[in-house]
Amino acid sequence: MLESVKASIGDHLLLKLKGGLEIRGTLMPRYGYADDRHITIKLGNGYNIGILVSRIEGVTVEKRGTFEPSKPSEASFKSGGEVLILGTGGTIASRIDYRTGAVTSVLTPSELYSSVPELGDIAKLDTEVLFNILSENMTPSRWDEMAKRVGRAVKDGYRGIVIAHGTDTMHYTSAALSFALENLPVPVVLVGAQRSSDRPSSDAATNLLGAVTVAAMADFSGVYIAMHKGLSDDVIAVHSGVKVRKNHTSRRDAFQSVNSRPAALVHLKGLRIIKNLELPPRRDGHQDFSVKSNFDERAFLVKYFPGMSGEIIDHLVEIGYRAIILEGTGLGHVGKPLHESIGSAIDKGVFIGMTSQCLWGRVRMTVYDTGRDLLRMGVIPLEDILPEVAVVKAMWLLGQGATFEDMVKLMPMNMRGEVSGRSLISYEHGRT
Amino acid sequence: MLESVKASIGDHLLLKLKGGLEIRGTLMPRYGYADDRHITIKLGNGYNIGILVSRIEGVTVEKRGTFEPSKPSEASFKSGGEVLILGTGGTIASRIDYRTGAVTSVLTPSELYSSVPELGDIAKLDTEVLFNILSENMTPSRWDEMAKRVGRAVKDGYRGIVIAHGTDTMHYTSAALSFALENLPVPVVLVGAQRSSDRPSSDAATNLLGAVTVAAMADFSGVYIAMHKGLSDDVIAVHSGVKVRKNHTSRRDAFQSVNSRPAALVHLKGLRIIKNLELPPRRDGHQDFSVKSNFDERAFLVKYFPGMSGEIIDHLVEIGYRAIILEGTGLGHVGKPLHESIGSAIDKGVFIGMTSQCLWGRVRMTVYDTGRDLLRMGVIPLEDILPEVAVVKAMWLLGQGATFEDMVKLMPMNMRGEVSGRSLISYEHGRT
Repeated sequence: MLESVKASIGDHLLLKLKGGLEIRGTLMPRYGYADDRHITIKLGNGYNIGILVSRIEGVTVEKRGTFEPSKPSEASFKSGGEVLILGTGGTIASRIDYRTGAVTSVLTPSELYSSVPELGDIAKLDTEVLFNILSENMTPSRWDEMAKRVGRAVKDGYRGIVIAHGTDTMHYTSAALSFALENLPVPVVLVGAQRSSDRPSSDAATNLLGAVTVAAMADFSGVYIAMHKGLSDDVIAVHSGVKVRKNHTSRRDAFQSVNSRPAALVHLKGLRIIKNLELPPRRDGHQDFSVKSNFDERAFLVKYFPGMSGEIIDHLVEIGYRAIILEGTGLGHVGKPLHESIGSAIDKGVFIGMTSQCLWGRVRMTVYDTGRDLLRMGVIPLEDILPEVAVVKAMWLLGQGATFEDMVKLMPMNMRGEVSGRSLISYEHGRT
Repeated sequence: MLESVKASIGDHLLLKLKGGLEIRGTLMPRYGYADDRHITIKLGNGYNIGILVSRIEGVTVEKRGTFEPSKPSEASFKSGGEVLILGTGGTIASRIDYRTGAVTSVLTPSELYSSVPELGDIAKLDTEVLFNILSENMTPSRWDEMAKRVGRAVKDGYRGIVIAHGTDTMHYTSAALSFALENLPVPVVLVGAQRSSDRPSSDAATNLLGAVTVAAMADFSGVYIAMHKGLSDDVIAVHSGVKVRKNHTSRRDAFQSVNSRPAALVHLKGLRIIKNLELPPRRDGHQDFSVKSNFDERAFLVKYFPGMSGEIIDHLVEIGYRAIILEGTGLGHVGKPLHESIGSAIDKGVFIGMTSQCLWGRVRMTVYDTGRDLLRMGVIPLEDILPEVAVVKAMWLLGQGATFEDMVKLMPMNMRGEVSGRSLISYEHGRT
């Protein structure tokens, strides 16, 4: 039908659909993932839609046109120096697949760059594809690989590293990198998007602008997540990588600092970091940067609920887990039926740490009998460490060769800012 | 020493402690849990403190007095009619045990009543101890017992029922009662305290006032949790029992409606319900009240994290679990390594439902390949049902004899308000 009117990419079409609906828009090229049963039309509002060919009753070419894909900008590099953008996949690097209607990872960092040419005003950018996965498929061995790549980039002299990442597990990865990158002298900023980059409502461009601004210009170092602070487009919150959580399935401001405030805010108008709310480590303030990237997957996160039996704890011990993080109730409790299994696990040298499923607030196990019983057994209260961060920390410590005694000592300590209101301990090399 | 000055209960004393500190207050009777190394003094501000006898250097009786424990008020019952307060334990019914410093459950509902005589202005109260446990030890079989007791009270004609409950698992219990009490014609209000009743900062009295107000006077029915809305003392939020979560370990406003607003607010000044924010079912609007209180514990809640293997799913199936609620990432995902185990569980007739560890927002599994793969396998997306509510609902449906097909149909449906923005389905008797 398109051939019959000699429609070509870039033409402005009027489509008549079955049922009387008419659609005006520009015919777009077909992406790799599209099938031949659909065509893609860019509407006047910038939104691309896929239309099933069988629904089209008539086509008129209203205006001939051409389509030129945008190219990476070679704009002037005013400031900041070099920033490396690593792509790992996720919505920020995705387009709608009009064949299935689902979102698929296809954009490379250089394509992202080309879609946000203002990035060139902030820093000279290099881009590299590290993985191309949806973040629910992120694994501890990929954290390892990512930490090593960041380590090389730091040693190569980049002023900052931006990691484009799926939002599902971005906060687990930020915790993993926080532990693995010791004495990090530059900012490493994870960034994602809640809406895919080809949607007009996408937050990809603004989040990226915020992340690159921090990577290039911030006077602090460490691992952060940069995402929308609220629903408006002009403020990006920069969360500590160990105090942040995805607290909404779909909103652009899904990420929130928990038991903490954001380390900084980036106001996009003017591209300036306007306020350091907390006191993160200073850029270049660290000596002895090192990458400790090994993670041991024998740590498990168990969320307690009424009716849970201790059997699951017994089983985890039996199949070789070496650390169990409990997500207890309230100040850090689990029901009596679990106590025997917990005591027996600790007797066998399995570390048991307590966090709270309340998420906000601090574990305090001295207030009630239950907590005191658990403390006596050797359960270690993990302060206000988020459950997600605690299980990552346990995998990391085990990966560094931590013994049971090391775990008991180090898990509740503030090593990377994961415990609020406590001094950072300096981590002795070779200690664990 | 007390004998030497003939001090007796109710006397106003001046105590001189080692180190020069002087304390003025009223000598209080010794509670059951106190030991003979301490005395209890009520300070001018109403706060009771325990003082180690060995710290006391001198005692002067400044004024003789008497102590009369307060009795349940026989004040005029202006309104509301009869409300039953059931005690189950928890901080709201607790005192500091000065022997161990821990908080122990000791207060009966009638003691609670006597400590808040204003309750008598709201309604004629009956009180009864049902359990005396810390709520982390709440179990599905106790939900059953509680539902049956509430059922009898409803049939006995109480205008409303208040359940004093520990806060740790209060939201699991409120969900359980919401499902078990079908076509409930009156309000059932769970209430707790974040600070024990003998502390000056206790929220016990104000929360109880709010709960009794709703039970006696509200024009709506259903199961609710009544707790402080904020840090001030004058507004109690009344949360739907299936849309509420404890989101802080210690704050008085720990409970929050998630993906929903509170059903009502009680302004304590004037003891009035001032606003129905949502539209809860009307009091006495239901026919056919029935108690369906059986819960089957073969439902398990699994929180996903990167690095989790499918082994745990296999094991739960092997030991006989019939429903697994996944707390996935983002819109409802888990990593690829779990997919095989999930598929195999479903093939064996185990129900697998998906919720989100984001907690806020709705599961939507059609957006990404991972979600679509899981849907194809037969994983059921559970809308915006909280993970905690989903596992309780699964236990309840299984307890009602639900088959796999019933679970697939009913778990994502809105049976008690647990799904936002969807019509309530009428539950056919004997359907499951």
